[in-house]
Amino acid sequence: MKRTALLAAAAALGALPLPAMAAAPQAVEAQQQFPPLFAAEIERAKEFVDGMIAEGVVVPVPKDPGGGYTHEQHKRNYRAIQLGGQLFRVTGEQRYADYVGQMLLEYAALYPTLGDHPARANQNVGRLFWQVLNDAMWLVHAVQGYADIRDTLSVEDRQRIDDDVFRRAADFLSVDSQRTFDRIHNHATWATAGVGMTGYLLGDQDMVDRALLGSDKSGETGFLRQTELLFSPDGYYTEGPYYQRFALLPFMVFADAIERNDPGRKIFEHRGGILLKALRTTVQLSYRGYFFPFNDAIRDKSLKTAELYEGIAIAYGQTRDPTLLSIAEYQDRTVLGANGLQVASDLAAGKAEPFPFRSLLLSDGPDGKQGAVAILRRGEGPNHTALVAKNSSQGMGHGHFDKLAWQLYDNGNEIVRDYGAARFLNIEAKEGGRYLPENTTWAKASVAHNTLVVDQRSHFDGDVDVASETWPEQLYFSDAEGLQVSSARIDSAYPGVVIRRTLIMPDVPGLEAPLVIDLVRADSADPHLYDLPLHYSGHIMEFDFAPQSHVANRPVLGEANGYQHIWVDAEASLDDGRGALTWILDGRFYTYRFDSNGPLTAILGESGANDPDFNLRREPLILLRAKRGNGAARFASLLEAHGSYDGAAEQTVASRSRVENLEHDVIDGSDIVRLTLKTGQRFAIAVSHDPDPARAHSVSLGGDRIAWTGFAAVVALAGGEKRK
Amino acid sequence: MKRTALLAAAAALGALPLPAMAAAPQAVEAQQQFPPLFAAEIERAKEFVDGMIAEGVVVPVPKDPGGGYTHEQHKRNYRAIQLGGQLFRVTGEQRYADYVGQMLLEYAALYPTLGDHPARANQNVGRLFWQVLNDAMWLVHAVQGYADIRDTLSVEDRQRIDDDVFRRAADFLSVDSQRTFDRIHNHATWATAGVGMTGYLLGDQDMVDRALLGSDKSGETGFLRQTELLFSPDGYYTEGPYYQRFALLPFMVFADAIERNDPGRKIFEHRGGILLKALRTTVQLSYRGYFFPFNDAIRDKSLKTAELYEGIAIAYGQTRDPTLLSIAEYQDRTVLGANGLQVASDLAAGKAEPFPFRSLLLSDGPDGKQGAVAILRRGEGPNHTALVAKNSSQGMGHGHFDKLAWQLYDNGNEIVRDYGAARFLNIEAKEGGRYLPENTTWAKASVAHNTLVVDQRSHFDGDVDVASETWPEQLYFSDAEGLQVSSARIDSAYPGVVIRRTLIMPDVPGLEAPLVIDLVRADSADPHLYDLPLHYSGHIMEFDFAPQSHVANRPVLGEANGYQHIWVDAEASLDDGRGALTWILDGRFYTYRFDSNGPLTAILGESGANDPDFNLRREPLILLRAKRGNGAARFASLLEAHGSYDGAAEQTVASRSRVENLEHDVIDGSDIVRLTLKTGQRFAIAVSHDPDPARAHSVSLGGDRIAWTGFAAVVALAGGEKRK
Repeated sequence: MKRTALLAAAAALGALPLPAMAAAPQAVEAQQQFPPLFAAEIERAKEFVDGMIAEGVVVPVPKDPGGGYTHEQHKRNYRAIQLGGQLFRVTGEQRYADYVGQMLLEYAALYPTLGDHPARANQNVGRLFWQVLNDAMWLVHAVQGYADIRDTLSVEDRQRIDDDVFRRAADFLSVDSQRTFDRIHNHATWATAGVGMTGYLLGDQDMVDRALLGSDKSGETGFLRQTELLFSPDGYYTEGPYYQRFALLPFMVFADAIERNDPGRKIFEHRGGILLKALRTTVQLSYRGYFFPFNDAIRDKSLKTAELYEGIAIAYGQTRDPTLLSIAEYQDRTVLGANGLQVASDLAAGKAEPFPFRSLLLSDGPDGKQGAVAILRRGEGPNHTALVAKNSSQGMGHGHFDKLAWQLYDNGNEIVRDYGAARFLNIEAKEGGRYLPENTTWAKASVAHNTLVVDQRSHFDGDVDVASETWPEQLYFSDAEGLQVSSARIDSAYPGVVIRRTLIMPDVPGLEAPLVIDLVRADSADPHLYDLPLHYSGHIMEFDFAPQSHVANRPVLGEANGYQHIWVDAEASLDDGRGALTWILDGRFYTYRFDSNGPLTAILGESGANDPDFNLRREPLILLRAKRGNGAARFASLLEAHGSYDGAAEQTVASRSRVENLEHDVIDGSDIVRLTLKTGQRFAIAVSHDPDPARAHSVSLGGDRIAWTGFAAVVALAGGEKRK
Repeated sequence: MKRTALLAAAAALGALPLPAMAAAPQAVEAQQQFPPLFAAEIERAKEFVDGMIAEGVVVPVPKDPGGGYTHEQHKRNYRAIQLGGQLFRVTGEQRYADYVGQMLLEYAALYPTLGDHPARANQNVGRLFWQVLNDAMWLVHAVQGYADIRDTLSVEDRQRIDDDVFRRAADFLSVDSQRTFDRIHNHATWATAGVGMTGYLLGDQDMVDRALLGSDKSGETGFLRQTELLFSPDGYYTEGPYYQRFALLPFMVFADAIERNDPGRKIFEHRGGILLKALRTTVQLSYRGYFFPFNDAIRDKSLKTAELYEGIAIAYGQTRDPTLLSIAEYQDRTVLGANGLQVASDLAAGKAEPFPFRSLLLSDGPDGKQGAVAILRRGEGPNHTALVAKNSSQGMGHGHFDKLAWQLYDNGNEIVRDYGAARFLNIEAKEGGRYLPENTTWAKASVAHNTLVVDQRSHFDGDVDVASETWPEQLYFSDAEGLQVSSARIDSAYPGVVIRRTLIMPDVPGLEAPLVIDLVRADSADPHLYDLPLHYSGHIMEFDFAPQSHVANRPVLGEANGYQHIWVDAEASLDDGRGALTWILDGRFYTYRFDSNGPLTAILGESGANDPDFNLRREPLILLRAKRGNGAARFASLLEAHGSYDGAAEQTVASRSRVENLEHDVIDGSDIVRLTLKTGQRFAIAVSHDPDPARAHSVSLGGDRIAWTGFAAVVALAGGEKRK
């Protein structure tokens, strides 16, 4: 009987392929044979759970909101239940089973007494926590630990915990909180995962069906529908990488349970294997281990995060893809289950292969038709180049007003940067660790991003509802070696203004890599003030214009929409619309060289104005301002990496741009950027905007005849060696 | 005959204990047996020299100043001569000897035609270079390479190079440039090293004697005298760590040659082994591999520098000290000689032991009586805590006006920072890579340092001649575990003002480490305005005062003496002279809490004003301003490290100070700092300033009876647990 129950539990939640329930000495012996990563995980879990055991079982009556004592204690408890159960299964030590059992009996005493949480903040109120989301997270974790020890309990205790904890919790989430449960939303994923896993453990098919198909079992909502609607066909989650990581956990954990209990569903093959695709996409959305920080994102969030320890282990369990092992190696963590053991064993056996970071286009929206995120990569390893073009949809409440924005990573650093969220997570002095007011006034504002700003207002006037209705159109994408391209347009960010941006990463003979050509065009029937900011990282080396400098009294750029947070260091009137700025970062030089279709004002500035609480980071930017009476603005720029500075060796190479001149013209709809190098060599980057790869194009320009085929090309022009 | 010459050369400059002159196949075989570090060094040298060989011998007529083409080419040439000779000796490949011989024959053709360099900048004019210093460096390097290949030359060629290159160069340095040669100065060390090594190689005892004893052979000047006067008895070089590293090379290289040619001199035992002591002191003057950047220093200069590859190898050759191997391991470099091979072999044999970084007092001045640098260390490994108290003398032209300044390193970072030099070494756009104007207007100014500034003027009014005449007095130093102390005073930085600063690193129960108590007292018969800046690294979390903020129009703090470079973010009037500021750096929180003997203005600012060329880094500071009509200012502060922030795990611990209150009193000449923790625990840090360790002291203060013995103590006070 006991053995049967154990097998049921094991089937429900993933038995370890080791002598589960082994007597302690054997277990210890076995433990010594665990691969290092798994053994370390056991030690880490023991340290936490042993500490909890030493404190005694503490199950307080719910009272505090997020961050408060009862909130944090119930969070610690669900971790202890999960890890305690896993430790029991791995080590066979009865005290872990006893502890988890005692803890759950305390919850059995508490749970029936609970109504709405007293610190409810909105209609999504929980029982143990102020928000129903946290109650769902509690259930997802606790049901895993319970499965591991349920068999060790007396019939009475088991019944009591089944009924007074898990059935009640599942009932609360799926019936009392049906509104949340039946949403197509990440919060509902947690709820359906908790309820579904409880159903499997208790053998309650009704519960399972409601979790999978929604509370009316129609399939219009529920977990399966969520897998179809919350990710794009490319496995992209619309809120962005930071939240994609968070959203992934319940998907992966519940899918793992479905696969074991109901293998006929082939859940990991559902919708073309969307869940495994989403896992890999999550990893692709990172550079040097850190997630691209666009939208509301904590910048120091990396692949080293609990959600991805589970995710990588489960995906590896399904696929045995050796490239996932290198991610586990980077994480230096895994989970205490069969999948984690497999990861640790195969890692120890040297089976890891490099994860194939690559260029790719990630469509957004359930049907893949709500814009896209384009990633252009060049080179290998941690210092490779990555360009991110953000042509995706709003991203629900956590999106920023940054259509067609971009970022560039090179040499291990974020060169053209995204601010991320204005938030100091869990730091009490900073608004209790919540999003700061500056998240709205700065971090979400268009001018805080590398995007075009019209008339000093944010895209969609900063209205999230309006912004959620439309998105950019990805016009073209190419990952062709030596000439990668992303091109997109949007006509809804500003009424009556069509904006198109084409980002190209070409190889040009005589210049180092990376190079980025950025073509921004805006068209409108009305006159507008166009601002194109570039938020870069580094220290200014030089610029080729003579600005008016505000060196003794530093003014602010504007009044609202983020402009109030920009200090103005200097501003220059560039009658010919051209200029260049060079900075250094981490031993590498970068020159941003630009040309526009008329006069520009170049503004050198820094974030951090109107910030009495020092909530903002202070980071430099250059803003190109174009007043265009005819409504048509053209910006063409080249971001050129060059040279190196080695302070230790006191060696400096090519600290100055290798480019002499950049000229931009538009002829017959084609963009032509002509570069003259200091060597005298001349090249054109020609862009037809015509996706037909076979179509031939040619233009004549100032004596140059420029001919190419397809969307874009680098064309060598006549012109001798000017300098040695 | 040839064999004899080789032996002479070997004796002169350090033969490798390997089959020198072996036929190529044998050499290749031997090479394969070299330890990894040495083999890598061979590869690196080959890459450079093979590239030079491919370019052909290029010996241009001298024309350009520092950084220019002919300057850089002659620098590359002396590297190629040195490395080419070493490669010939190691690999036996004749082409290296041929190349070096051809190069030197070109120099033999050129040298007799040379007069003063056309780009002479001052009276210290060179021949190959614009400055005689560079000519000396050329000789030190070239003579080593020549020694390695001299034996392979025909008699005629050898005679020609002896006479037309080396005798002429030695003559130029020691006779034509006698003024430099006979200085007690680092430039003379290079000159005497070059001349002396040439003397050994050519068997010219007169040349050797002049190098060792000065051109009049009296011993009043020359290399030996330099070892006696340029380092303090503790092996500290007065210009500071950055220049100490640079100065060390000719000392070590020439000493190595002396030891081999003239072992009876026991040069490495001279003056109590000062050269080896200086080498170890150089290493001690670093944190995480980077030199303390006080005085004119390039901040990214680390132990990974050519001078120290030689220095470590030579010192290891002399001492076989296994702790030097760990430095070589960090450097991941060595040199292509016998010493380097020994380092690489023993490193490969696993003989390395950790270098004993420790607390120590480094006296300054030839007699050790010109102040001192005190280093207080706590903990082990790269993240240990290090406090640097700069109570040393001016440091010749490269010193800053920063008497009694301090720095703090913790958790791998510089928490309380020194700006270093305002210079972008070798970066053309930044004044050709020379010291920037801001080096004088900001980097050297007192207010740019963590020191007391009186009446908004720099120490010694910024006059280097005045500053060079006096120095602080180190009053006390203790490296006692749990209560390390440095105390010093100066009465000459400002006429009529006596300043005393005591820095204490105590352990206090209930608080984390590190803690720093900083006591600054200034006394004068006249009223003064006292400014105490703290240049910290980090992002502000909170402060406990309500300042007037300049959030929309940022003014500058002052007009001159560095004040013109400080932006004012906010200023607060603190009537009780107390306040606290918390910042975060790299996942660790730091609170600076202070109390003064009267009202303070606390100014939150940032460097970077009046800097139209963006030459300065923008770094935060807090400045405490005390107007004291009676001339007596007292500042007491606690810098408290606390808690942690882990963005990846989303965990924050103790983001707020654990201290409730700090009160400072002076009673009977003793400083008493009373701390009340948030737990209610109370402690006093009591400082008698009496160095007698046995003397008992006691004071009564507001109901507390505080008794201790010796200079300072942490005393527990009555006071219950206030909070849980």
